[in-house]
Amino acid sequence: MKQHSPRSGVTRRAVLSAAASIPLLSLPQIRTNSWAQGIDPLPSWNNELAKQTIIAFVQATVDSSKPTFVPPEARIATFDQDGTLWVEHPMYSQVVYCLERVPVLVKQKPQLQEREPFKTVLSGNHEAIAKLPLHELEKVLFATLTGMTTDKFKSEVEGWLKTAKHPRWKRPYTELTYQPMQEVLRYLRANSYKTYIVTGGGQDFVREYSQQVYGIPPEQVIGSAAGVTYGYGDDGKPILTKEPKLLLNDNDAGKPEGIHLMIGRRPYAAVGNSTGYRQMLEYTWAGAGPRLAMLVLHDDDKREYAYGPAQGLSDTKVGTFTQELYDEAKNKGWTIISMKNDWNRIFAFEAAGSRALQ
Amino acid sequence: MKQHSPRSGVTRRAVLSAAASIPLLSLPQIRTNSWAQGIDPLPSWNNELAKQTIIAFVQATVDSSKPTFVPPEARIATFDQDGTLWVEHPMYSQVVYCLERVPVLVKQKPQLQEREPFKTVLSGNHEAIAKLPLHELEKVLFATLTGMTTDKFKSEVEGWLKTAKHPRWKRPYTELTYQPMQEVLRYLRANSYKTYIVTGGGQDFVREYSQQVYGIPPEQVIGSAAGVTYGYGDDGKPILTKEPKLLLNDNDAGKPEGIHLMIGRRPYAAVGNSTGYRQMLEYTWAGAGPRLAMLVLHDDDKREYAYGPAQGLSDTKVGTFTQELYDEAKNKGWTIISMKNDWNRIFAFEAAGSRALQ
Repeated sequence: MKQHSPRSGVTRRAVLSAAASIPLLSLPQIRTNSWAQGIDPLPSWNNELAKQTIIAFVQATVDSSKPTFVPPEARIATFDQDGTLWVEHPMYSQVVYCLERVPVLVKQKPQLQEREPFKTVLSGNHEAIAKLPLHELEKVLFATLTGMTTDKFKSEVEGWLKTAKHPRWKRPYTELTYQPMQEVLRYLRANSYKTYIVTGGGQDFVREYSQQVYGIPPEQVIGSAAGVTYGYGDDGKPILTKEPKLLLNDNDAGKPEGIHLMIGRRPYAAVGNSTGYRQMLEYTWAGAGPRLAMLVLHDDDKREYAYGPAQGLSDTKVGTFTQELYDEAKNKGWTIISMKNDWNRIFAFEAAGSRALQ
Repeated sequence: MKQHSPRSGVTRRAVLSAAASIPLLSLPQIRTNSWAQGIDPLPSWNNELAKQTIIAFVQATVDSSKPTFVPPEARIATFDQDGTLWVEHPMYSQVVYCLERVPVLVKQKPQLQEREPFKTVLSGNHEAIAKLPLHELEKVLFATLTGMTTDKFKSEVEGWLKTAKHPRWKRPYTELTYQPMQEVLRYLRANSYKTYIVTGGGQDFVREYSQQVYGIPPEQVIGSAAGVTYGYGDDGKPILTKEPKLLLNDNDAGKPEGIHLMIGRRPYAAVGNSTGYRQMLEYTWAGAGPRLAMLVLHDDDKREYAYGPAQGLSDTKVGTFTQELYDEAKNKGWTIISMKNDWNRIFAFEAAGSRALQ
């Protein structure tokens, strides 16, 4: 968390940098203000630095007697989804959706059956599918996510969400959200923060379940977006058709650019888990006053997965959380969330406190 | 206002069409529910059909015992700005802003001084300026609205808003909002509607004052938008630069397209005042259940201006409310708001009830 400082310029940056490496409020004070009342807003978090930083940030920004106060209407918090709010391994759920749509698509357009990459996808050969280069995978994404009305897309995704299950937990993807992050979302909203999802995934896809799964309405989901075209159906009724044209690539620099387009102001808090979120965190952190910038580190190979700097794994298609980003985060004073050490519970369906450190 | 009907298909359309031409609730009932308590939510409106339709729509959608009930999270209302929420004559205020920025721009880039359309703008010849073709005017817009950081743009607009005055009323543009529409915005919000501005004007421009002037936060302003590019300033701090590239042309079909991009769901209420809003009103009206679609008719040449079908004026650059749109609206059962007959007061600075019909 970054503190407010009346200084400006280079000196201010140095002060901020130093200040960022220590918690804003001393621990006893946090306990008095919040926990003494018997209400722990983040029960699935162990009492480590990450939890303390989140609570200190909220307390600093909602107390109107403090110079760090942030007016309620300016309280914007942005969250990545895949790997930050829910499981992204072994594959982004939206990619699973697209691959599983291919048989239906081929039934409608049989000419695709012998064409790559559809042929490989239909083969069911997981190894070959995993090796598809990005530009081939994109063909599958465009073919299954565009070329239909927004209403048709909506009903297809709704149907899939009801039946699709994660291969490891055999549960719907929508149950694989991280309980500690759900608590952070609720805690922020209880303190008048507007919570947003800012995802590299498809905006229309995530909007189908964001309200139900995260309590985040469609208009607070920013993602990669295909353009739509307004027209009229056979019955003369207005329709919107999803076009195979990327209007917003919500990755890397596209994240702050998308935030400007959709929100029009800088977030006070931002959480991600990969290099694709570096710019969003930088942009958030560079604002005046208190800021919260966090990265989720996947370092729990027992309860979830371990990849990124925790395991030296950066060759995976998802979760490209590099050692370089880890070092940048540490240098800047961003908060690293260790799933292994910071979270005593990962999913709501697990027993509470399944891994309490204290 | 359109009523909910459990029927579907062609029959349902016919029923809706017929139902739309009569007020949903009988007048005595409206009076009992709302006015008998001594609280008139729309005091600047005469008790005519438009006012009754707005009140009937809200009452029908917020009463959970009715089949026309709309859940709070789905209550979206979209409003045009120019000519609907504030004065657009003799020129859109944003165009005035751009023209008034030209001398400053030429000081920074003297080579523009002898180039068209800048030369004409600098001449101050109102007639010649008014005759500039659209593609020439666009050069002025791009030159004055893009090519700078979002922070620089913000401070320029803020400065202008403090000093600029409308030529007729000699008041800041921000005081020239229509009091009756401010009441509708507040009335809808008091009933859990999320109010949006959907404007052909510049998104970043309107966002500078939307909160203060209309109580609408920046993220609830959708407008024509230039793309921004993320980068770093000389001090290494992240910056967003406004690019001369139109990302969203928020006119005509661009309005429902922009609504899908930014909100992701169909509005229940929509208000505009020109042909550029036809698609937004169609899209809103085509949804199931109760819908409100309204057009502001400028027919008061004494207190404001008269143009469009009221005066047969369609050759003006603003307010292209054609006879054709008027007829379509009447046929579909959309509500026409007559400034002359429906509003007893136009601006907040006027005496209340300056034109009460009863």
